[in-house]
Amino acid sequence: MKKTEIITKDELLKHWLEHRTLTKRTIEVFPEKELFEFSIGGMRPFAKMVNELLSIAVPALEDMILNRTTPFTHREGLLTKEALLTQWDYDTQKIAELYNQLPEERFHEEFNLFGEYKFPIVENILYMIDNEIHHRGQGYVYLRALGIAPPFFWDRY
Amino acid sequence: MKKTEIITKDELLKHWLEHRTLTKRTIEVFPEKELFEFSIGGMRPFAKMVNELLSIAVPALEDMILNRTTPFTHREGLLTKEALLTQWDYDTQKIAELYNQLPEERFHEEFNLFGEYKFPIVENILYMIDNEIHHRGQGYVYLRALGIAPPFFWDRY
Repeated sequence: MKKTEIITKDELLKHWLEHRTLTKRTIEVFPEKELFEFSIGGMRPFAKMVNELLSIAVPALEDMILNRTTPFTHREGLLTKEALLTQWDYDTQKIAELYNQLPEERFHEEFNLFGEYKFPIVENILYMIDNEIHHRGQGYVYLRALGIAPPFFWDRY
Repeated sequence: MKKTEIITKDELLKHWLEHRTLTKRTIEVFPEKELFEFSIGGMRPFAKMVNELLSIAVPALEDMILNRTTPFTHREGLLTKEALLTQWDYDTQKIAELYNQLPEERFHEEFNLFGEYKFPIVENILYMIDNEIHHRGQGYVYLRALGIAPPFFWDRY
């Protein structure tokens, strides 16, 4: 019996890219200084979290496509809002290109991401999206604490 | 040509239920008073966000199963941590039961959730999961601001 897919590969990419749009808007509304310096309760400033997200998505997809494992390296070098946003856009493009090269058949293949997280590829991809939502939600609290309205959560288009 | 599913219906439920486990742990580590009173930047206390999550998931799935549309009603009545946790567990069970009654064929059917959000059912389900991750991430900032370590993000089992 042929099963009906609940979500297609293209739909999951679209979902991810919409979240990327919302995260970009969240970076944009931060004032430059607070993006790199403001934090609550000893947590990282939002720019550090964004650097973490940039350190995961494209390197992970490259490793998946090339069937190799490289250790996680935390990108630290993006020190202005403009540099972060430029990299964000560049990586969004790259995510789409790399994701499209992953055949459906591989989504259930176990992949030892960064040599540390051995899960089916689809779970690693969901983890990346979830991690972005999680940290962006934290960025929303920073913005509210700064008296700045974050973008609407549903506005991802 | 038969397409390979990137994620099965059961896997998406498992993913959701794992997030429910992590959110439950997040509620548990809040002290009673701060769960209902602490907030940052004029945001809602974490208990109000949890009440919102409880107001969405089960009512939405019930409407989907019964093919009806009811307006969104924000549940407000759970005023102790114990009451929230009891309802959380009860609803987690109910989510699994209701989700299992949704046939794969309906995931791409447009559904006008609460008479306001007309999207394919799978998008409404992803929205519910994303919304939970988003608010839980905000709860993490509250916890850090209170000097309390939140549960590990990857610990959902």
